Amino acid sequence: MNEFLHGGDYNPDQWLKRPEILEEDIRLMKKAGVNEVSLGIFSWAMYEPEEDVYQFSWMDKIMDAMYENGIKVILATPSAARPAWMVKKYPEIMRVNEKRERLLYGDRENYCCSSEIYREKVKKIDGMIASRYAKHPALIMWHLSNEMYGECHCEKCQNKFREWLKKKYKTLENLNEQYNSAFWSHTFYSWDEIESPSSIGDQAVHGLALDFSRFYSELNIDFLEMEKKEIRKYCKHTPITTNMLSLDCGIDYSDLGKILDVTSWDSYPLWHCGKDKTSEWKEAVKASFHYDYCRSLKKQPFYLMESTPSNTNWAAVCKLKRPGMHLLSSMQAIASGSDSVLYFQWRQGKGGYEKFHGAVVGHSGSEDTRVFRDVCQVGDELKKIAEIKGAGTISKVAIIFDWPNLRALKGIKGLKNNKKDFVEALQEYYEALIKNYVNVDIISQRDDFSEYQLIVAPMLYLFEKDTDKRIKAYIENGGNFVLGVFSGIVNENDLAFECFPPYGLQDVFGLCVEETDALCEDEFNEVTYKDRTYHATDYCDLIRNQDATVVAEYGQDFYKGMPVVTKHTWGKGTAVYIGSRMNEEFLYEFLHDMIQEVGIERICDTPYISDIMVKQREKKGIKYTFLMNFSTEQRVIEVEHQQYVLGCYEYKIITTK
Amino acid sequence: MNEFLHGGDYNPDQWLKRPEILEEDIRLMKKAGVNEVSLGIFSWAMYEPEEDVYQFSWMDKIMDAMYENGIKVILATPSAARPAWMVKKYPEIMRVNEKRERLLYGDRENYCCSSEIYREKVKKIDGMIASRYAKHPALIMWHLSNEMYGECHCEKCQNKFREWLKKKYKTLENLNEQYNSAFWSHTFYSWDEIESPSSIGDQAVHGLALDFSRFYSELNIDFLEMEKKEIRKYCKHTPITTNMLSLDCGIDYSDLGKILDVTSWDSYPLWHCGKDKTSEWKEAVKASFHYDYCRSLKKQPFYLMESTPSNTNWAAVCKLKRPGMHLLSSMQAIASGSDSVLYFQWRQGKGGYEKFHGAVVGHSGSEDTRVFRDVCQVGDELKKIAEIKGAGTISKVAIIFDWPNLRALKGIKGLKNNKKDFVEALQEYYEALIKNYVNVDIISQRDDFSEYQLIVAPMLYLFEKDTDKRIKAYIENGGNFVLGVFSGIVNENDLAFECFPPYGLQDVFGLCVEETDALCEDEFNEVTYKDRTYHATDYCDLIRNQDATVVAEYGQDFYKGMPVVTKHTWGKGTAVYIGSRMNEEFLYEFLHDMIQEVGIERICDTPYISDIMVKQREKKGIKYTFLMNFSTEQRVIEVEHQQYVLGCYEYKIITTK
Amino acid sequence: MNEFLHGGDYNPDQWLKRPEILEEDIRLMKKAGVNEVSLGIFSWAMYEPEEDVYQFSWMDKIMDAMYENGIKVILATPSAARPAWMVKKYPEIMRVNEKRERLLYGDRENYCCSSEIYREKVKKIDGMIASRYAKHPALIMWHLSNEMYGECHCEKCQNKFREWLKKKYKTLENLNEQYNSAFWSHTFYSWDEIESPSSIGDQAVHGLALDFSRFYSELNIDFLEMEKKEIRKYCKHTPITTNMLSLDCGIDYSDLGKILDVTSWDSYPLWHCGKDKTSEWKEAVKASFHYDYCRSLKKQPFYLMESTPSNTNWAAVCKLKRPGMHLLSSMQAIASGSDSVLYFQWRQGKGGYEKFHGAVVGHSGSEDTRVFRDVCQVGDELKKIAEIKGAGTISKVAIIFDWPNLRALKGIKGLKNNKKDFVEALQEYYEALIKNYVNVDIISQRDDFSEYQLIVAPMLYLFEKDTDKRIKAYIENGGNFVLGVFSGIVNENDLAFECFPPYGLQDVFGLCVEETDALCEDEFNEVTYKDRTYHATDYCDLIRNQDATVVAEYGQDFYKGMPVVTKHTWGKGTAVYIGSRMNEEFLYEFLHDMIQEVGIERICDTPYISDIMVKQREKKGIKYTFLMNFSTEQRVIEVEHQQYVLGCYEYKIITTK
Repeated sequence: MNEFLHGGDYNPDQWLKRPEILEEDIRLMKKAGVNEVSLGIFSWAMYEPEEDVYQFSWMDKIMDAMYENGIKVILATPSAARPAWMVKKYPEIMRVNEKRERLLYGDRENYCCSSEIYREKVKKIDGMIASRYAKHPALIMWHLSNEMYGECHCEKCQNKFREWLKKKYKTLENLNEQYNSAFWSHTFYSWDEIESPSSIGDQAVHGLALDFSRFYSELNIDFLEMEKKEIRKYCKHTPITTNMLSLDCGIDYSDLGKILDVTSWDSYPLWHCGKDKTSEWKEAVKASFHYDYCRSLKKQPFYLMESTPSNTNWAAVCKLKRPGMHLLSSMQAIASGSDSVLYFQWRQGKGGYEKFHGAVVGHSGSEDTRVFRDVCQVGDELKKIAEIKGAGTISKVAIIFDWPNLRALKGIKGLKNNKKDFVEALQEYYEALIKNYVNVDIISQRDDFSEYQLIVAPMLYLFEKDTDKRIKAYIENGGNFVLGVFSGIVNENDLAFECFPPYGLQDVFGLCVEETDALCEDEFNEVTYKDRTYHATDYCDLIRNQDATVVAEYGQDFYKGMPVVTKHTWGKGTAVYIGSRMNEEFLYEFLHDMIQEVGIERICDTPYISDIMVKQREKKGIKYTFLMNFSTEQRVIEVEHQQYVLGCYEYKIITTK
Repeated sequence: MNEFLHGGDYNPDQWLKRPEILEEDIRLMKKAGVNEVSLGIFSWAMYEPEEDVYQFSWMDKIMDAMYENGIKVILATPSAARPAWMVKKYPEIMRVNEKRERLLYGDRENYCCSSEIYREKVKKIDGMIASRYAKHPALIMWHLSNEMYGECHCEKCQNKFREWLKKKYKTLENLNEQYNSAFWSHTFYSWDEIESPSSIGDQAVHGLALDFSRFYSELNIDFLEMEKKEIRKYCKHTPITTNMLSLDCGIDYSDLGKILDVTSWDSYPLWHCGKDKTSEWKEAVKASFHYDYCRSLKKQPFYLMESTPSNTNWAAVCKLKRPGMHLLSSMQAIASGSDSVLYFQWRQGKGGYEKFHGAVVGHSGSEDTRVFRDVCQVGDELKKIAEIKGAGTISKVAIIFDWPNLRALKGIKGLKNNKKDFVEALQEYYEALIKNYVNVDIISQRDDFSEYQLIVAPMLYLFEKDTDKRIKAYIENGGNFVLGVFSGIVNENDLAFECFPPYGLQDVFGLCVEETDALCEDEFNEVTYKDRTYHATDYCDLIRNQDATVVAEYGQDFYKGMPVVTKHTWGKGTAVYIGSRMNEEFLYEFLHDMIQEVGIERICDTPYISDIMVKQREKKGIKYTFLMNFSTEQRVIEVEHQQYVLGCYEYKIITTK
Repeated sequence: MNEFLHGGDYNPDQWLKRPEILEEDIRLMKKAGVNEVSLGIFSWAMYEPEEDVYQFSWMDKIMDAMYENGIKVILATPSAARPAWMVKKYPEIMRVNEKRERLLYGDRENYCCSSEIYREKVKKIDGMIASRYAKHPALIMWHLSNEMYGECHCEKCQNKFREWLKKKYKTLENLNEQYNSAFWSHTFYSWDEIESPSSIGDQAVHGLALDFSRFYSELNIDFLEMEKKEIRKYCKHTPITTNMLSLDCGIDYSDLGKILDVTSWDSYPLWHCGKDKTSEWKEAVKASFHYDYCRSLKKQPFYLMESTPSNTNWAAVCKLKRPGMHLLSSMQAIASGSDSVLYFQWRQGKGGYEKFHGAVVGHSGSEDTRVFRDVCQVGDELKKIAEIKGAGTISKVAIIFDWPNLRALKGIKGLKNNKKDFVEALQEYYEALIKNYVNVDIISQRDDFSEYQLIVAPMLYLFEKDTDKRIKAYIENGGNFVLGVFSGIVNENDLAFECFPPYGLQDVFGLCVEETDALCEDEFNEVTYKDRTYHATDYCDLIRNQDATVVAEYGQDFYKGMPVVTKHTWGKGTAVYIGSRMNEEFLYEFLHDMIQEVGIERICDTPYISDIMVKQREKKGIKYTFLMNFSTEQRVIEVEHQQYVLGCYEYKIITTK
């Protein structure tokens, strides 16, 4: 397709007895500029009302009707939710929680990934769907399951976990050594002594807990891959995706991305809920991080698979989107590399958990609503900018977000058990970068570093095998690397290195860290940088400088005068260490200077204008610069010597060659 | 009896080996003006020390002693707590919680209502008690069980639930349609797939959760009815009650009221715990609501079955009643329609959960205490006003409190998941009404509307069958109806209506609601009414006016200028819509004006005097007006051109013909 | 040994394959002045890799190496943590929690004390260890298990509990009477109806819950005694201890102390986490309380068994110890009667729950660290003051901390369920006493009173048999006794006395208490004492004075003018009653006056200097007075006409004959 996708989740299973609703939906879709619907996500109960008895004709009709009306279909496998009869007959398909309780029927995304029966059932239904609709002219994409997450602790999963461990460690001796299990008498002498983490068992062997996270991430991906294979039996080329949703849902998305043809994201910012009612900047930064992450997984355009045209129904306060926000927030996804604006959902369900979730068409069925008009406007705008579809994103700056590192940090006991904030600390760096108006990629520590001029790794506590060497090589070859507080402490199994951190990089950074202090919520340490003072908070590395240049020192406490920010030339590159959680103002200023020194080309060469986000896509030599105002107030920004005035929630796209 | 009952729970089972205590109790009861005791509430272990071995002689003696001393008895069935031996032998009589865990022996009010064994045991002991004491001259009332509440999830209850559903929906097709279970693939193809709501299963099929609440309410009532029938085998006329305790204990009291001869309430306001130490007004309003509710259930005098003469023992802070409060709070119940002031309990138990709960006679056994003297004073006052006993309450104003609506609102995901406040929002209207010095009835949406001049329905989210038609007819025939925000959204099964709300009443109210916004805790919207500004908070309906008269508009946000309060003439009546949670000051002023316009006769024609509550009872043409000062400071109120000065916690009763 | 022990937990099991680490450890130990290590605490998995297959040679080598290098060993029994294979084979050795869930393998200190298998396994391993090392020249002490705590609810433990009850009460009649179980129909007619407290059963029979606490305390002690006996089979004289850790870990330490030769404590104050960053006084008071308690259990020097040389890893905020604090906090233990400064742990483990807990040697293995130098400094100081080792503590003042009383208070429903604060209220008295610069013993209500000039019993709610008589006799014979609010209410089974409190002491104190009010958090009652006003908070006894001298009255509320603090001469002594939780300033002033009147010799005769703690030990007629400054600021204190200037975290020891 040569235009952006506009549409979203459609669950007509709810109205099969009401053909007039299907007809009306098509009329309204056309009116709203909808060219896509996502079907079949929760349709298993409709497809298979009793075991091995199938009915597809209803879906045939809907697919045909869509095709006839020029609407494309993203078709889902129905594995996320199974019919009640299946659980009644095979209770073992349900997940066992960490308390070792088997779940009852209900909810969704809560099956056991090891259940042979469930796998067979899924394969069979997937195969039937794939073979039936592979060639359907409406079909443009496959949607595996839905918002996969979580883990199961049943005996089957436990056994698979033990096999996984055997494969990884070969011998118990290795495993015991990596877990340091001699501590607290936790040595394992037989593989079957190993249990997954449990609140009525053990959560203290951190290496084991981390391995269970990795194991289950792989098992989740393996499950999706099984579904993918089943589809590929009948359909060789239609792209396959699954909708991602969160930075920590129990799956390492950097692995998941590899098995997908395209990535997609379900995005639900909590607009208008912050203290500052005039600015949605903070929420926009979080959404932007998600989009950049999803795009970076495959370094190609992604799909915004779900978003709400109005409110969510599960937030603490389910606020309506203010006028202008729906268009702006949709354009933010496009600006970040999305080739779609899709919704959950087209028509509001009359009952069930999400009956008050925003939808394009509400319970009333009326098109004479603010929400419907907002959606039509997005449809119109997307058509106007159709040429941007498929445009890429060029980033010379990357930030490392690494899921095993996140899980390991969440697991540790130490520093500040009451506030770990790894994601927040990471996003502070990210915010400082995008305030400098550069595109940013979000990568894992295993990704290729070479294409970036600047890489920032906040709190990279866990170094996988060779991470130190790869950072070293990157810098040696001219890279600029910023390493944050409490980095390089443990190996991939959460086993501490026998040295002062950062492991393997003391020479590169010209320093080492002897101790790390933790600060209470009411504490900070004043740091001076270029005559202005900033705050160091939460964690403070006590750095022993060897031959780094001190950029800034602690101004207080018994480590007053010790360096907190340092710079060290190594090979052709620069190694920067930031030994505390510095406040946002510092990060902005410091990274601003660094971007200039390094010579990174910014999207626009202006200081940050409050609440204005700038992103750029590029296609066939044409640059599309998105200026977006997340304030309710008017802002002016200068780009290439021209001033742009942006009103409340307004955006502009500048096209340059 | 021609006097108010004064007395309460007496548990002499604890002192059977101490006959001198029984003797002393009788002496003290007489001194305190006690003319009633409630016996046998937790006596099963004493009645039946081993299976089918009974001992009643101890109770015979107590009943006789009471009679001989002119003290009447309310006799309970002992079903609320069973002997330990019974649970040991029949563990199945205990409840299964929503996690599907069978409870161990202990506590009380936690048996399974479906257990055939328990039902047989209860019937047998009830029959023995009823046949033995039916004719006892001391007996004046039967007290079924105690503070019934809650639910069981055992397989027996599940099966009964499935039968209940079959009876209600006839076919699974109907059930699936009403639950909109096609959403999330929750379609049921067999009745036995249905499970009651569980945190390890499903809580998302809201219609199902609501039905389980209704089912268990009916099962609880059915259990009490079974007890009632057993008593009626032996005792045809002595009135039967059970003690109610809470607005949401899992029983629809408007149904429960129907099987009782008289209603009764256990009232435990948390006096003196508020921020404002000079005023107990807020707590008095809550107590008043409970009393008015209990009285409205049968529209006849009710009984205050339990109250404390001193502190409670389970509050966050168990404060003593300040001097004067015991008399005032007792009189508040009388003013609201109670024909009794009864206590939990007469003599403090020496051990167990409630050993520090206030009692007339404390552990010391002394009569030389402040509490004992306070109780004597109440005894004296009740004798003085004995003529009021049996007087009715005439209310021309009603407020709708509807339990299924409450449960449905608690269940939904939407609006403000962090603060639902249905009861609080309701009681704000109630407070505004009683500040206008009118008697108020509290009714369900199924009750007869015709006798009221004004009916207020705050947040009537759920419309049962014909509720729209009944409201319409009421207004057409000259009624004045105030409907609050977020009303008329779903049918009785929590299934959204296919229209803009309020369902079926757009013509009557001259408007419809397109969207409902939710406000954060720090937000409000300014509303002007008669040149003064007020606050709209929490929920804001975005109203599309058709032909209603706009009474007040939103003053802010993107819906500035939209109506928030409207009035519409329909037939002979008036339909008022209040589209937000308005602050108390607004509700008082607006309802004040409305009461005047409608021409409702107020108890006294003065503006609200801070902290003064006014209630009225009527008997044989004589009106008894209670003026009650819930402030520690002196207040003056003018009634019929006469000024009444009320000191700290003082009350006065004015008798007029 | 004639010097203080300096060393601590050493877990070389983690580095058995790294002999160079053991060697390096010995070198560093010597450098740090370490003369002791605690071994084998979690070594079971290393001793017994499979059932009945043992390996001790590794421990032989370590013991020998220690001996050869002049380092003494405290050797532990390994019962706190068992190998995984044992749980796999015998799941019954794991504890059952109060929800009746059997725990899975993992963690530590969570075995069932009734498991015959576990007892056999423990006896066998203990015997093997004891017989092997009893005569080892490095051995100086046995360390039973580790930080014993908690309880098991398995059927075996339940049965033992029932036997325990039979032994205590003889008949069910007695038990029912003491539990007042007739209340709520809880009468037991068979011993096997009794269940331990459970959140899915009963927690309301408070006497039963208290008995279960006592029973499990005894069972825990019985388990340790079993281990002790096993050791004594092979080793007659080496002293035996176990490490205590908390004021309420489910064991009555006053009982536990009796079976030990010496007591020891694991001390982890949260230094530097308070609001006031210039003063660590409050934390120092809590640590001091623990030390005084541990010392008082046997009235002889105790051992500081664990402390951290740096941070903890489990605190909300794991702050580093500021310079000077490690030495000061170590000396505080010595000042309080410890004959050791021991650490958890010598070398930081590389993995597991505590890998970020402070240790003498960190992951880097470096000796060139602030922490290592701090430890060396403590080693040096301990050598300098070696003569003080073994010195006693003479206290003429005692405060009653009684564990059953604590448990009973925690269990009750009443007064302030949102804030019981028994320990805090107790420690306020303690703080007021030590601010008066006297040594304080902490005793139970069963201990001998006769040696004290002043005894303070804050909130002694529960009076065991004869406690009233013993208090009476103490006062009659010249003792001075301060009894706090809400005292003498119940007997040892939490059964209320049939009188106004304080039970049995109305004549002695010249008063009784009619009611007790509870105050909200924002409330207080002003009390004047010697022309200054103070605050009464939380609980207020309404006292009926008989012939006591009123020291202070309530200044507000309806009990204005009632006495709150009274004094009464009885026999040769004085009975003081303090009927509220008085603020700290009052307690300091009032106890100051009382100490003077009673004529207690203070360690130094100066008013309290902010943040200066003073403690004294005595040996062979020589007094060692410790002056310790817990402020970051300089303080001056005058002792015996000489001024001592103490800088930040500085201490001085004054030696006088």
